[in-house]
Amino acid sequence: MAAAQMDPDAVAKAFVEHYYSTFDNNRVGLGGLYQEASMLTFEGQKIQGVQSIVAKLTSLPFQQCKHNISTVDCQPSGPASGMLVFVSGNLQLAGEEHALKFSQMFHLMPTPQGSFYVFNDIFRLNYA
Amino acid sequence: MAAAQMDPDAVAKAFVEHYYSTFDNNRVGLGGLYQEASMLTFEGQKIQGVQSIVAKLTSLPFQQCKHNISTVDCQPSGPASGMLVFVSGNLQLAGEEHALKFSQMFHLMPTPQGSFYVFNDIFRLNYA
Repeated sequence: MAAAQMDPDAVAKAFVEHYYSTFDNNRVGLGGLYQEASMLTFEGQKIQGVQSIVAKLTSLPFQQCKHNISTVDCQPSGPASGMLVFVSGNLQLAGEEHALKFSQMFHLMPTPQGSFYVFNDIFRLNYA
Repeated sequence: MAAAQMDPDAVAKAFVEHYYSTFDNNRVGLGGLYQEASMLTFEGQKIQGVQSIVAKLTSLPFQQCKHNISTVDCQPSGPASGMLVFVSGNLQLAGEEHALKFSQMFHLMPTPQGSFYVFNDIFRLNYA
């Protein structure tokens, strides 16, 4: 994702749209957004590295889903030019009547190519 | 808060207990946890610096409240020895029947004295 010349809120929003669109339509494609040092904490379970993260996300007990985003907040994370992105929304699973609320945070770090990868990822359902 | 020799999950839990206990009992005391570069995004409103953050937190439209914590997740944020803390819980306001769900993330950065301050803080209510 090209970051140059974009304001942080626009970068955050573009990342979020790209992330959840990939999650909902081609989950294995999320691997391109993580690196070996990347960390995911999913409902309290700690996972590290591209392969393990993709294995977790593709083995969740639902196949079809749709994320609907309610809010996106972002802040710069410090001198390393990272960016914190905080998302709330709901997750509609195929065949389920009620959507699940969730919140998730990403710490995006810049790549030498001028885009971002996900260094930190923490996901929680807020059983509504 | 002394960080030396503690494991990250214990530091995160201790920080969270200290933060919300201070919020609920002596809100102005939260100023000691922020510095001039600290950022708070509160329900989408961006605020920076100790004085502005304390002014925001002490002018919220409720005086008595109690935070109940459901989950605390943490991850190291990178080479600067920071720590990301992600919290979900509910907020009981005095005189209100129903508690409000919230989620909040903190980016803690180390101080030269071996404790932490809040560099990033993002708070959202998840209207349940």
